[in-house]
Amino acid sequence: MKANASVAPVVAALPASRPFIAPEELERTSGRTDLLRLGANESAFGPSSGALAAMRAALERVAWYGDPESFDLRAALARALGCGSEHIVCGAGIDDLLALAVRVFLSPGDAAVTTLGCYPTFAYHVAGYGARLVTVPYAADGTLQLRELARAAAASRARLVYLANPDNPSGSFVSAGALATFRAALPPDCTLLLDEAYAEFAPDEGIPPFDSRDPGIVRTRTFSKAYGLAGARIGYAYAHAEIVTAFNKIRNQYAVNRVAQAGALAALADRNHVAQVVRETAAGRAEYRALAASHGLATLPSLANFVCVDLGSRERAEATVESLLRRGVFVRKPGAPPLDGYIRVTVGTADERARFAGAFSEALAEFAAKPAQR
Amino acid sequence: MKANASVAPVVAALPASRPFIAPEELERTSGRTDLLRLGANESAFGPSSGALAAMRAALERVAWYGDPESFDLRAALARALGCGSEHIVCGAGIDDLLALAVRVFLSPGDAAVTTLGCYPTFAYHVAGYGARLVTVPYAADGTLQLRELARAAAASRARLVYLANPDNPSGSFVSAGALATFRAALPPDCTLLLDEAYAEFAPDEGIPPFDSRDPGIVRTRTFSKAYGLAGARIGYAYAHAEIVTAFNKIRNQYAVNRVAQAGALAALADRNHVAQVVRETAAGRAEYRALAASHGLATLPSLANFVCVDLGSRERAEATVESLLRRGVFVRKPGAPPLDGYIRVTVGTADERARFAGAFSEALAEFAAKPAQR
Repeated sequence: MKANASVAPVVAALPASRPFIAPEELERTSGRTDLLRLGANESAFGPSSGALAAMRAALERVAWYGDPESFDLRAALARALGCGSEHIVCGAGIDDLLALAVRVFLSPGDAAVTTLGCYPTFAYHVAGYGARLVTVPYAADGTLQLRELARAAAASRARLVYLANPDNPSGSFVSAGALATFRAALPPDCTLLLDEAYAEFAPDEGIPPFDSRDPGIVRTRTFSKAYGLAGARIGYAYAHAEIVTAFNKIRNQYAVNRVAQAGALAALADRNHVAQVVRETAAGRAEYRALAASHGLATLPSLANFVCVDLGSRERAEATVESLLRRGVFVRKPGAPPLDGYIRVTVGTADERARFAGAFSEALAEFAAKPAQR
Repeated sequence: MKANASVAPVVAALPASRPFIAPEELERTSGRTDLLRLGANESAFGPSSGALAAMRAALERVAWYGDPESFDLRAALARALGCGSEHIVCGAGIDDLLALAVRVFLSPGDAAVTTLGCYPTFAYHVAGYGARLVTVPYAADGTLQLRELARAAAASRARLVYLANPDNPSGSFVSAGALATFRAALPPDCTLLLDEAYAEFAPDEGIPPFDSRDPGIVRTRTFSKAYGLAGARIGYAYAHAEIVTAFNKIRNQYAVNRVAQAGALAALADRNHVAQVVRETAAGRAEYRALAASHGLATLPSLANFVCVDLGSRERAEATVESLLRRGVFVRKPGAPPLDGYIRVTVGTADERARFAGAFSEALAEFAAKPAQR
């Protein structure tokens, strides 16, 4: 028998695609082992010293499974959110929670709506579970087209609509008021999956308060960005208790590792570190905007830990990504129009930003010197 | 709208069940914070010092995502297995890989076959994905009924049959020859999912060699048991390359954390540590058998890191688990007949085994003194 014959039809029909090529793979294929990582929106500022110390201590008990309930962490998160622990479910990063959300709300064949070219892992899981993705492009200015997303949800009878706020890769931000208007326009049986991976970088007053009685929204947060724990794999969703119960029925109970739980709990307690990261990130965004302007290039307004720079064409953006990679700098490029002429650069430390500025100038000069490729 | 109305029918219909109550939860509900953990088959001997050092070092880069390809670890595993890396996929422990296997091989409504009362997470995921579980009980002596499993697979047109070898909770072991006979009796489109979580504790010559061209079997291994890294959450499956491709199409690409990858890679290199753990575990099993015999109790033969002791009745087994818990000792009890009159005790360190022996004697005496409850 051929191996493929035993694979379920939904999986057999999927392309062998991945949402991303990882920096490690770029290092292997480019032969560079010391890439400046400005492409995965990781924190250049790392975790707090308290989080690191807690993780070091937790390693002493790494032979023990982590608490599948993440009880202590959920209790701390609940205090921060002003709700009960029954409104919170932890996962191995938001990716894990997006996959669970797809399973909780979509049956095979059901439609989900999102923005073309936004964070690709939602689309990956929609396809992986045999559901149907309906997309709406970004507006020309890189903002989300909320009215069109709501229309698409109604037209496709979508059970789930996904958006990130601040958005990735654009960095754009939807105010609490605009979000409320959007939600009012959604069909009543369509749940909003609101990915707040970058929410710490946005102004507090822009984030809608948590209404724990609202059954129509699931919000996700992560320790991968402002908290500097991407490699630890830990995030959480917060929602109506009945929705959390549905997540709990199907989640991999032991998905979150013991060391990550300890790190996240300590990270939460160190508010100063996050505040400092957020301040430094804002300074870095301003620096990137000024750098782009010095080259006559526009940027998208961003409230996240990255900035999109307009290279004017897909060709120039692609050439710049490749040229930067040859110079040891890893950045990403949005894949779909109208943002495919941009590159997305994560805010690094001051030293890293200076190194990027130099490589970027060289890459632009290289492209300018090769008119045949334009 | 009610929250439940938005949940997909498969999930809404599931009971709010969990495969296990974790020791942390037992600690919270019992008020004891220092349970002797002999119930989750964790390694009392911990990881190797090399693995711990590698994890400590990896924490320095915990702000970076782990390599989603687990490239270095897969390369090392491939060398050990004598195959190419394309035959290996890593996951956040075997639980993660069991969930993926269910998705790879089963469509909703398809049948899967396993043993009633065996490791419950397979059944959990079968139910969670809307597939159908068909079970065969253990034989009275705690062994797997292979002929009946194959018959059930044929009768139910199962696409997947799950067994663990050594088995959990019985500890029984199926020889390579018996496994080959079993496979020959399976329907041709039924894949064998062979969970080798405890394989390091079994004799090498009992483990079938890996035939990388065989499309009908997926085998899983973990760093949670003999390697002492349960809290790190890392395991792998090895199979035909086309089957691994199917796993790669749907897996959470960033499921495995960076620290775990470093720890597993270092753990693999430290063969002495594992050999020592395996020796000490065998000594501990013998000690548990002798302890049981000293109380006139039988045990099941085990080639894993735990021993099942026959308490003679479900009532006595349940009372013993509760009595041990009151004495600060956490063990588990198989849930289904014919093993529900047993308790399952993980091999601890020599000190822990001595502590267990004392608490066990007290628990037996307590039960004997309460004839009304019998």
